[in-house]
Amino acid sequence: MVDTAAARITTTPARKSGTRASAAAPALDGPPSFDVDAVATMLLGRWADDRRTSRRLALDPALHRIDGLTVSAHRDRVFEQCRFLVEHGAIQRPFPTAFGGAENHGGNIASFEELTTADPSLQIKAGVQWGLFGSAVLHLGTERNHREFLPGIIDFTIPGCFAMTETGHGSDVQSIATTATYDPDTEQFVIHTPFRAAWKDYIGNAARDGRAAVVFAQLITRQRNHGVHAFYVPLRDDGGSFLPGVGGEDDGVKGGLNGIDNGRLHFDHVRVPRTNLLNRYGDVAEDGTYSSPIASPGRRFFTMLGTLVQGRVSLDGAAVVAQKLALQIALSYATERRQFPGPDGADTVLLDYGQHQRRLIPRLATVFAQSFAHEQLLRTFDDVFSGRADTPERREQLETEAAAFKSLSTWAALDTLQEAREACGGAGFLAENRLVGLRSDLDVYVTFEGDNTVLLQLVGKRLLTDFAAKAPKDAAATAKFVAAQVGTKLADASGVRALQQNVLDRGSTAHAVRDLQDPATQRSLLAERVDTMVAEIALALRAAGRDPQAQATAFNRHQHALIEAARAYAELLQWDAFTTALDDAPEGGTRQVLTWLRDLWALGRVEDHLAWYLMHNRLSSSRAQAVSAYIDRLVTRLRPLVPQLVATFGYEPGHVRAAIASGAEGVRQEEAASWFAAERAAGRLPEPEKKPKGQRPGR
Amino acid sequence: MVDTAAARITTTPARKSGTRASAAAPALDGPPSFDVDAVATMLLGRWADDRRTSRRLALDPALHRIDGLTVSAHRDRVFEQCRFLVEHGAIQRPFPTAFGGAENHGGNIASFEELTTADPSLQIKAGVQWGLFGSAVLHLGTERNHREFLPGIIDFTIPGCFAMTETGHGSDVQSIATTATYDPDTEQFVIHTPFRAAWKDYIGNAARDGRAAVVFAQLITRQRNHGVHAFYVPLRDDGGSFLPGVGGEDDGVKGGLNGIDNGRLHFDHVRVPRTNLLNRYGDVAEDGTYSSPIASPGRRFFTMLGTLVQGRVSLDGAAVVAQKLALQIALSYATERRQFPGPDGADTVLLDYGQHQRRLIPRLATVFAQSFAHEQLLRTFDDVFSGRADTPERREQLETEAAAFKSLSTWAALDTLQEAREACGGAGFLAENRLVGLRSDLDVYVTFEGDNTVLLQLVGKRLLTDFAAKAPKDAAATAKFVAAQVGTKLADASGVRALQQNVLDRGSTAHAVRDLQDPATQRSLLAERVDTMVAEIALALRAAGRDPQAQATAFNRHQHALIEAARAYAELLQWDAFTTALDDAPEGGTRQVLTWLRDLWALGRVEDHLAWYLMHNRLSSSRAQAVSAYIDRLVTRLRPLVPQLVATFGYEPGHVRAAIASGAEGVRQEEAASWFAAERAAGRLPEPEKKPKGQRPGR
Repeated sequence: MVDTAAARITTTPARKSGTRASAAAPALDGPPSFDVDAVATMLLGRWADDRRTSRRLALDPALHRIDGLTVSAHRDRVFEQCRFLVEHGAIQRPFPTAFGGAENHGGNIASFEELTTADPSLQIKAGVQWGLFGSAVLHLGTERNHREFLPGIIDFTIPGCFAMTETGHGSDVQSIATTATYDPDTEQFVIHTPFRAAWKDYIGNAARDGRAAVVFAQLITRQRNHGVHAFYVPLRDDGGSFLPGVGGEDDGVKGGLNGIDNGRLHFDHVRVPRTNLLNRYGDVAEDGTYSSPIASPGRRFFTMLGTLVQGRVSLDGAAVVAQKLALQIALSYATERRQFPGPDGADTVLLDYGQHQRRLIPRLATVFAQSFAHEQLLRTFDDVFSGRADTPERREQLETEAAAFKSLSTWAALDTLQEAREACGGAGFLAENRLVGLRSDLDVYVTFEGDNTVLLQLVGKRLLTDFAAKAPKDAAATAKFVAAQVGTKLADASGVRALQQNVLDRGSTAHAVRDLQDPATQRSLLAERVDTMVAEIALALRAAGRDPQAQATAFNRHQHALIEAARAYAELLQWDAFTTALDDAPEGGTRQVLTWLRDLWALGRVEDHLAWYLMHNRLSSSRAQAVSAYIDRLVTRLRPLVPQLVATFGYEPGHVRAAIASGAEGVRQEEAASWFAAERAAGRLPEPEKKPKGQRPGR
Repeated sequence: MVDTAAARITTTPARKSGTRASAAAPALDGPPSFDVDAVATMLLGRWADDRRTSRRLALDPALHRIDGLTVSAHRDRVFEQCRFLVEHGAIQRPFPTAFGGAENHGGNIASFEELTTADPSLQIKAGVQWGLFGSAVLHLGTERNHREFLPGIIDFTIPGCFAMTETGHGSDVQSIATTATYDPDTEQFVIHTPFRAAWKDYIGNAARDGRAAVVFAQLITRQRNHGVHAFYVPLRDDGGSFLPGVGGEDDGVKGGLNGIDNGRLHFDHVRVPRTNLLNRYGDVAEDGTYSSPIASPGRRFFTMLGTLVQGRVSLDGAAVVAQKLALQIALSYATERRQFPGPDGADTVLLDYGQHQRRLIPRLATVFAQSFAHEQLLRTFDDVFSGRADTPERREQLETEAAAFKSLSTWAALDTLQEAREACGGAGFLAENRLVGLRSDLDVYVTFEGDNTVLLQLVGKRLLTDFAAKAPKDAAATAKFVAAQVGTKLADASGVRALQQNVLDRGSTAHAVRDLQDPATQRSLLAERVDTMVAEIALALRAAGRDPQAQATAFNRHQHALIEAARAYAELLQWDAFTTALDDAPEGGTRQVLTWLRDLWALGRVEDHLAWYLMHNRLSSSRAQAVSAYIDRLVTRLRPLVPQLVATFGYEPGHVRAAIASGAEGVRQEEAASWFAAERAAGRLPEPEKKPKGQRPGR
């Protein structure tokens, strides 16, 4: 374990220097002073108190995952943990004060994320109950629905499901086939599953615990289909048996998150009262008349889906937490573990290997970028959900940020967990060291609550829409517009910029590096790539004409490129969030170190796409080489700061709970070294048969 | 399931064309004829009969993994499965005929690999017993050892361990601290664990089943340490209790492979007879005199380790099998599963999405490359282990190929299993669809039997040694030698080659693509990258001088680059294997299709490193763009051939056992479409409230 207090070093006096200035003045004599507590506070963010409360709760062994449980025992345990959360007032934050809540939306998500340290199954089971099932009633229902349904949801006497996805339709919610047909004679809705593909599937709480569900179905009244709406549908009696007409099956063992009982549900003409429609965005009168405050069915559908964005926000945060745990485990081990003798005969600490640094330190920079980006997303979310700034623009920003950040962070979590696991070798494969368990659980985060590929495509489509709004209408003018705006084709053809760089950098990587440290350079590299990619795709789509089939073919041909453009845009947003956060860092060494991390992260993104920058003449060959060279230098520079950087995460041994990050490895190494020293001193070490090359002295 | 017979199409007559000619003549009128059976036979390779036998055995439900078992029940099951293998004569192949074996080394590995389809735990548990424990006795022991120990190992009455790795030393076997000190008075070796870091760890069969172990320890006699040797050490009595002086603990739950009881072992002055030393490469006489047929302790150590290369060979093959299963599952599903309406109103088949093709089809090319490379490795292995061609050169080739291919294929397996799992969405996360289970099990393949990073570094060091053998001794001459050999610095500075390409390709991607199809172009792109990278690192190391500390620092700074160079070399070897295999393909359509796959794979590798090729002026910008454009074209061209390509793997439903690859999804889609058609015909489909854009007709 990293000792937060011990890790704070202040060997050099703090320097007075602004972000930009300090980034361009790397000539330091020793390691800069770095204020662990200040950065820890930055990372805790606006809802620091909620996070701290939740972290304290997460130290309770009752909430900790136990490896090797059967699926059934794990489900039992997580069910009880949910009760524990209710009893400790941990889930009430977002609900109305009338129901014992605090209407604290940001704090609610922040506190849930921290449960990831206890067991991701708990985070997700709680998310199903209060974040999806409860949240659907809260946001899609009216006060009538709240009074009737919320109390049992909040106190967990009614465990419930969010029954949206169908076996035949995952990401395409608009096409679900379950129907809710209004019968004016009885004033009931008839919920019905017409065929096997329309079974609800992968539904949390469906296999065992669910007493009720919010079921999404096509609302049909008076022979008209008004699109997808949500209905409150009782599922099981008090004994846990399905009610008449309801059926289902267990999804069985999953790749992770086995504390949650996912399953399938189907309905055979199940009748519910008219008032079980969650009727905030659409209602049916006794006589069957449909009404809605939103005239357009399309906009109504997306408004209803939009209330569910909080799932994505919460997964983004959980993915950040998991990365912090992974890096704390792998980096703690890497600073104690030794392997292969170095030139001095002593075994080398893993983190002193160039390859090991390259594997882990850039990922450390990533988690800082994603942490700051997540904090920004959380604020956007709270602004909208508190109603404080619930404007269409802010909602759109929320949806874009949630889709973009959730995609990148959940993929990054899998990548970092895997790299951490491999960096710990066989020890990383043991459940006691937690990396494999976290990875298994987080696996599905990349495809649930919005498949990352689909989410990035949505972001990409929004970029195309924005582009179309700005661009002229005819193709020739657009081409000129594009050339003027992003300078792509012209600059490409002449290679002017790359040539300029060659001239500027001639014989001097120092000049190139200075320029790469400049935030303006970094931002324009990231931004121009987005602009150019989007413009290129837009031009290609426009060239395909208006025929729907030709359009579809052209779109499909550029689908991969569009998703890459969206990824580039997400990275730009993360860069902005990171750079904005730097302003809150204490000036001097602390801000300097965070700026190095920002630079490392930004240049890592440029390095990922180096071929693009070269092919588009945005970087000369020598400038491109400077990118990798400077990354290497930053990694080396950050190496000694790793313990302090990890300490800023603020996790205690009770959160980390990995045997190899407990200090045990250091003790073992110490014991081994002492044994050899004592044996050597006593003259008991046998001589080697022949002193082989590189033999460590005294063995 | 893909029906092998149905998948074989012969719509166009076979064309007479050699590999090179056909690659350069892509103007085909329809899909080429493709002989599934012929390619299936190629993939089965030299040990087709052994593979077929093992595949038949693997259809037995007794060998199939059951998801959701407790660790203890899974261990029981796999233990019984090992008995089953003995009873069915499935494990005897490699042993001497005197012991009921067939001395069939290649066939043995090939047959073991196929057990991956049943349960990777079985492959690995069997691998521990017969591939490691048994193999150590076989290859490190003499006839005396064989007579005494092999029968119980072969018939599994003595389940055993291969106790090499220690908690404190994973990859660095030479530094293990367990000692075996000879006591001439009793003619015994005393096996001893001096401290906690020297406990044997991650040892299969150690936690529960192991009755004996081959223990690796520093052999000490007459006050001399003769380095690491292997000793046969009994562990437990018939009741399963540890013998006096032996102790250990369970490694507990792992990220996968939970059918194997990995654990830790330690020894407190445990005495074994002198004759329990496996004495092929080193022996101790009654009086304590040490002797060895290999004078150099270093060479002796590597010779002993070298006999263990078969583990790597077998993991390489298992990784190929797992990729085939993953792709068969994801691609079968992708050809049935529909999502989101296309322009014609009908939902689109997943594999018709550009992004989905880009995700899966290049990985299909990879598994063909790795399959052919593995077959080559297996032949090299059999040549050496049968003694038919056991030369130092061939042994070195074997070790290099095993390290290179095992690293790339095990990483590729994780990558492909994950991409397949994500491409199947939530369904991919269910254990019933097998992708998550296979991924969990194969996770550790990238770090056991040689950590991939360490293995690639070994390959890299060998490349440096080869370079040093060819290069002149002084730095200036070396620089010239490098420039002359790989043309790097000079070509870089002038950019002559890139300029030439620009002139040649001006206005014509056709010319660029034709050139990229040329095997000579592909090979030189891959080979020159290796040569240049190695030369650059060698120059940098030479510049660091002879001081060990400076050398170590320089080496460390280039460690990442060296590992990348080794990876590039491994890819070159794979390209060679793939290209050689093309000669065995039937001429005409079949060879054409395999050539497309080879091209797709080769250009994928170039695309991975496009920035390098641009920075080193090996490719012009326009040529680089042609690489990606031609990849896109190949992916589109291969799309309709996917069912046949998958059919060449030859796996039956009993091997695949994934619900989503069983045809069930197609049935569900069919049922849904029929329901809508019937409702529409009967006039029962309600009209939409307002026809939204893109609404599919009739819903």
